[in-house]
Amino acid sequence: MPSRPELGVAIVGYGGMGKAHAYAYRVAPMIRPLSCEPRVRVITGRTPVAVEGAARAYGIPEWSTTWRSAIERDDVQVVEVCTPPGTHAEIIEAAAAAGKAIVCEKPLAASYADGLRAVQAVHHAGVLHAIGFNYRRLPALALMKRLVDDGAVGQVQLSRTTWLTDEFSDPSVPFDWRFDRRLGGTTIADLGAHLVDLARWMVGEVEEIVAQSETFVRQRVDPAGGPAIAVTVDDASSALVRFDNGARGSFEMARICVRHPCDLTVEVNGTEGSLAFDYARLNELWFGSRSDESALYGMRRIRAEHPSHPYAAQWWPLGQGVGYGSSFVNQVCDLLEHWPDGPCSPNLEDGLRVQAVCEAMERSVESKRWVRITEVHAG
Amino acid sequence: MPSRPELGVAIVGYGGMGKAHAYAYRVAPMIRPLSCEPRVRVITGRTPVAVEGAARAYGIPEWSTTWRSAIERDDVQVVEVCTPPGTHAEIIEAAAAAGKAIVCEKPLAASYADGLRAVQAVHHAGVLHAIGFNYRRLPALALMKRLVDDGAVGQVQLSRTTWLTDEFSDPSVPFDWRFDRRLGGTTIADLGAHLVDLARWMVGEVEEIVAQSETFVRQRVDPAGGPAIAVTVDDASSALVRFDNGARGSFEMARICVRHPCDLTVEVNGTEGSLAFDYARLNELWFGSRSDESALYGMRRIRAEHPSHPYAAQWWPLGQGVGYGSSFVNQVCDLLEHWPDGPCSPNLEDGLRVQAVCEAMERSVESKRWVRITEVHAG
Amino acid sequence: MPSRPELGVAIVGYGGMGKAHAYAYRVAPMIRPLSCEPRVRVITGRTPVAVEGAARAYGIPEWSTTWRSAIERDDVQVVEVCTPPGTHAEIIEAAAAAGKAIVCEKPLAASYADGLRAVQAVHHAGVLHAIGFNYRRLPALALMKRLVDDGAVGQVQLSRTTWLTDEFSDPSVPFDWRFDRRLGGTTIADLGAHLVDLARWMVGEVEEIVAQSETFVRQRVDPAGGPAIAVTVDDASSALVRFDNGARGSFEMARICVRHPCDLTVEVNGTEGSLAFDYARLNELWFGSRSDESALYGMRRIRAEHPSHPYAAQWWPLGQGVGYGSSFVNQVCDLLEHWPDGPCSPNLEDGLRVQAVCEAMERSVESKRWVRITEVHAG
Amino acid sequence: MPSRPELGVAIVGYGGMGKAHAYAYRVAPMIRPLSCEPRVRVITGRTPVAVEGAARAYGIPEWSTTWRSAIERDDVQVVEVCTPPGTHAEIIEAAAAAGKAIVCEKPLAASYADGLRAVQAVHHAGVLHAIGFNYRRLPALALMKRLVDDGAVGQVQLSRTTWLTDEFSDPSVPFDWRFDRRLGGTTIADLGAHLVDLARWMVGEVEEIVAQSETFVRQRVDPAGGPAIAVTVDDASSALVRFDNGARGSFEMARICVRHPCDLTVEVNGTEGSLAFDYARLNELWFGSRSDESALYGMRRIRAEHPSHPYAAQWWPLGQGVGYGSSFVNQVCDLLEHWPDGPCSPNLEDGLRVQAVCEAMERSVESKRWVRITEVHAG
Repeated sequence: MPSRPELGVAIVGYGGMGKAHAYAYRVAPMIRPLSCEPRVRVITGRTPVAVEGAARAYGIPEWSTTWRSAIERDDVQVVEVCTPPGTHAEIIEAAAAAGKAIVCEKPLAASYADGLRAVQAVHHAGVLHAIGFNYRRLPALALMKRLVDDGAVGQVQLSRTTWLTDEFSDPSVPFDWRFDRRLGGTTIADLGAHLVDLARWMVGEVEEIVAQSETFVRQRVDPAGGPAIAVTVDDASSALVRFDNGARGSFEMARICVRHPCDLTVEVNGTEGSLAFDYARLNELWFGSRSDESALYGMRRIRAEHPSHPYAAQWWPLGQGVGYGSSFVNQVCDLLEHWPDGPCSPNLEDGLRVQAVCEAMERSVESKRWVRITEVHAG
Repeated sequence: MPSRPELGVAIVGYGGMGKAHAYAYRVAPMIRPLSCEPRVRVITGRTPVAVEGAARAYGIPEWSTTWRSAIERDDVQVVEVCTPPGTHAEIIEAAAAAGKAIVCEKPLAASYADGLRAVQAVHHAGVLHAIGFNYRRLPALALMKRLVDDGAVGQVQLSRTTWLTDEFSDPSVPFDWRFDRRLGGTTIADLGAHLVDLARWMVGEVEEIVAQSETFVRQRVDPAGGPAIAVTVDDASSALVRFDNGARGSFEMARICVRHPCDLTVEVNGTEGSLAFDYARLNELWFGSRSDESALYGMRRIRAEHPSHPYAAQWWPLGQGVGYGSSFVNQVCDLLEHWPDGPCSPNLEDGLRVQAVCEAMERSVESKRWVRITEVHAG
Repeated sequence: MPSRPELGVAIVGYGGMGKAHAYAYRVAPMIRPLSCEPRVRVITGRTPVAVEGAARAYGIPEWSTTWRSAIERDDVQVVEVCTPPGTHAEIIEAAAAAGKAIVCEKPLAASYADGLRAVQAVHHAGVLHAIGFNYRRLPALALMKRLVDDGAVGQVQLSRTTWLTDEFSDPSVPFDWRFDRRLGGTTIADLGAHLVDLARWMVGEVEEIVAQSETFVRQRVDPAGGPAIAVTVDDASSALVRFDNGARGSFEMARICVRHPCDLTVEVNGTEGSLAFDYARLNELWFGSRSDESALYGMRRIRAEHPSHPYAAQWWPLGQGVGYGSSFVNQVCDLLEHWPDGPCSPNLEDGLRVQAVCEAMERSVESKRWVRITEVHAG
Repeated sequence: MPSRPELGVAIVGYGGMGKAHAYAYRVAPMIRPLSCEPRVRVITGRTPVAVEGAARAYGIPEWSTTWRSAIERDDVQVVEVCTPPGTHAEIIEAAAAAGKAIVCEKPLAASYADGLRAVQAVHHAGVLHAIGFNYRRLPALALMKRLVDDGAVGQVQLSRTTWLTDEFSDPSVPFDWRFDRRLGGTTIADLGAHLVDLARWMVGEVEEIVAQSETFVRQRVDPAGGPAIAVTVDDASSALVRFDNGARGSFEMARICVRHPCDLTVEVNGTEGSLAFDYARLNELWFGSRSDESALYGMRRIRAEHPSHPYAAQWWPLGQGVGYGSSFVNQVCDLLEHWPDGPCSPNLEDGLRVQAVCEAMERSVESKRWVRITEVHAG
């Protein structure tokens, strides 16, 4: 076998996202031919025993409790940023300064200002950068995008996207970083980032937005035994949106919807048809077209696994289904198939545009008025 | 058999709603014992041949092209108003002046001002009045309401309701009264009336609202061959809402969603559980509870036909299912079971409160700001 | 209005089926123009107070505890047989002898021999006759049949039909006529009749069959307080079947499937496509075709309510849905649209052919071998 | 990190199954702590260029076109048999003779006689052995099994399992080994193996069975350009079954069901409840219980990803979903967690028992009678 160059990777953060990215690097080479051999060399985290366990579990040879040293290693060319949102900007700045390519988990940051710092850093350093909007790499959502681009629904006029979970439903869940806006970002930013990304991708740029937000459980038990701690993020928010092409839409992101584990839905309605996706059945896509025979009035439930569908042929036989992990694997495949020449898309600039929409929502909640995205860009 | 008093009914309007109401009067007596024998004596409409055909089809002995004479008949005690919304107020005023009980189709009127006239008329005359929010009488939605009232979901915190159709999707559909705001009311008012009614019923009174609206097809062919006619209603609208009890919610009503025939969905999320309804599967109700065993994490698909469920025991065996018509039949049963002593609920005042919310949405669209419902009441 | 001749109807049996047939006669005239005015003149049953109550509820002017006198009335032209299966033959013989047209509920009888008597009686008398395979008149199943006939699935090669209920699941349910084979027929005959009818209709004549059967709860409490009574019907049965055109299929009918209220499913797979129906979503039909674009691989969920669909245009707007009752109404409409000239289909001969297949299943259970339907016809 | 012993693996066969097993070995160590470090050392196949490509894609350092040399390597302790069924016995005999542990894909063989040879070989050699009934390791099916074992449905009385695909629907698909019974086994054996395994696991041992079978497309184009080749396997088969505990059930396996990609369904009905699984929604399990409140009559849609569910905690957050690949990964985890001390279950003996049931079906098709499984064991 002709040998391909190795590509050294550092994963910063060993939690759920660290695990997903580690999984992706293990699997990607067997799903698609890559232009290099990725090697995850090190994973970092603050708690020695936990990060050591993660390294062992994920098959990563080294671990560290100091991310700076990890990202500055000479044998590392790519830094995967998998820590809480509020820490992203600092890590990106350091990695960019060290000349590393950056793959940052979403949301880009816990605020637009921080996100802007991150983007400026990568621009200044001239490094490659990408952002982890992994759902773009689910077969069904990628097929949805392709059908939109192919004109299957005509001009998109309406969209609605929701993300409903119940992770905050139990008021006795103690305070942690997800309840701290500076570290975790708002629910608008954390869950909303995916919704805004998908809407931008499918529909167009957001022009203005109005939002509402509520925190029903306003303080949480201190796990350290201190007095209750004020929650600084929203339990539930929703927004109306106008896109620059005249389409209208809505977003809803809520963490208090009992027995919704993490239910993402996306629908677009265009002049010629409708497309709808429900993450709970992630290998399916619904499509209805005005040009379908009216005697067959209804929608098609597409099994988004046909070899002709995006990301399908490389996985399993039609009907067997992929899961969450596949989106991360496909992300690595897209990144490394032609590395370093391929398009890094979406990248941190996309992340910043998404962040601007989220910040516009936050401002709208505070000001109780429609906010134009240009207002956020203006500072 | 002991005889029950006859109750004379006039149906004003012979279209889809006239048919549904006629069906309801035929079937109601066999579904539940009524305190009277309803007799639909006359149906009215403007086109002789059409109204005659309707009378024959619906088994109604007389027909008329003048609604005034019909509602003033001595042998008529109840007037069913089944005409386009913009005509309701005038008919209600006349029926009330003639001392007749009134059952009005939704929405109450094409404007809040007209709705107010109608309510003042029935108050002044002291007649019984009811409004046709028929979906309250679907078994699954009635069960949903009962479960909410029984505390099955705790305190409702979020709701979302949508009504998606494709009746306006085809831009070549010619102009008719549905596109004329004065006669048909806006889509906000026409489809939204059901959504607002269900939300008021399940969640509470709306306090303030912000909405957006769009008309994508701005003019339609004149069926009479004249120049294209401007459309004065919205194709699609949506709203964010705050209820007076602190709950948050959203409404969406759209007539340009291809291959959505008339898809009504309602979901509420409370502190203890979630309930969801999808009209496309109208005999089902989804319920998830925090108190369910976590090892059975998920939602229950309730077959809302158990004899213990509302409106179920009188119909068919469990699992056989009812359709749209049953909601109208149940409405007549509720009205006439203890006539004239029973509660007439919802009534025109409910219709007016709904209209106020719809008008607040319309004002919000124009002013691009949150509108409090009290502003509408203030004129 | 020009007057149409009246058609007098007697309903024998006031239970669930009596109610469904009474409902059908009330509603049919408003759904479709009929060639006559049906008048249900009398309903019969054994328990005076119950049948009187039923007459009142169903709006039938007279009632009787002797079915013979009712069916012999001069003002009755049609007899609807809605009693337990074991009683059908005797009633049909009497009605035929009296020269009445007969509409018999399914199954035709509790045994093939009895069914044969019934068919011979109507042949001898030369009266019109029909059998109540009402599911043929559900819009979605009628659409399925039309699509099969139109070649949408090519040559049917496979079929599977099931009817799962839980009515016998609770072993403490006391003995009643449904557990008595002579009166209620087997589960094979009672539930299976619909399955066999639909398979004959969609696929073709059954040629041979092999079946299994089990009664898990072998005796039931005597509601009169006597000793436990032996159950003589099956709790659950299933069969493999070969059709005369070479297609293969299966039937399953079971009354011990917890939380299945009355779940009827029908699927056919042909050389060109598949069609599937699930009664739990009775307004839907699933269709997949080999000629669909492979890039849209999947099935269509047809909303079987389009005005172009069978039985749809006369009911409600697309998307609103019909229920169980509509099948009975459509049955009366089909019968009376051109009465007495129209085709009575399916008729008692169809009922007898179905009965032969059911009896073949029963014989196969006893003999543990494949049974040809011609063996049953041979006696 | 303390080091674990390496475990050398050879994968025989590089097609779809070879890929799935290679994937499983890559991912397993990061999903669960294993008692050893698996190293896939070699993969084999007949076509050099293809097997070399597979080795590269799957990250396997060596490849070979001679399976014998591969399985005899000193650095190989486990042989994964991923070739067509008709080749299994010979490979197993050789691997057992070489003292290797064996993991064989299903079905065990293309005939009972061959399967018996394979089992005798592993018994004689005293090697560890397992069979790849991977669906037992899907979270939802493992949860179903747990609920059955926990008595959630009481005594199982009925089961039905189906596997519907359309891989043989197109008559122009040319002949390949899947159409050759000696190499691929019948459809009864190939698809049925999973069905029989799941039924044995959930319900109990099969005692007797009756089956039917049909080959609609009797010959296929020779891809080498010769005359059409006779197909020696069935397109579609189905069976009725009696279990030794008195339960009844059915199997259906068909490859001519248009727009069914590979739809596996399993349902059991017991004295206390029902459980149902549909592979098309593989992260869900349906459960209805007699002890559920009747006012909530229906079934629960369990999201089979709760951390308390089998195989769930190690994967992704609740609601994100796993795919087909996870079943293979979990299979490796189960095998290697306590290697070599852990239970190898199911093993080749289970495979042989399944094969006996499949062979009984084949004999029943030929003899048109019920066949007892003991007849197959008797030879």
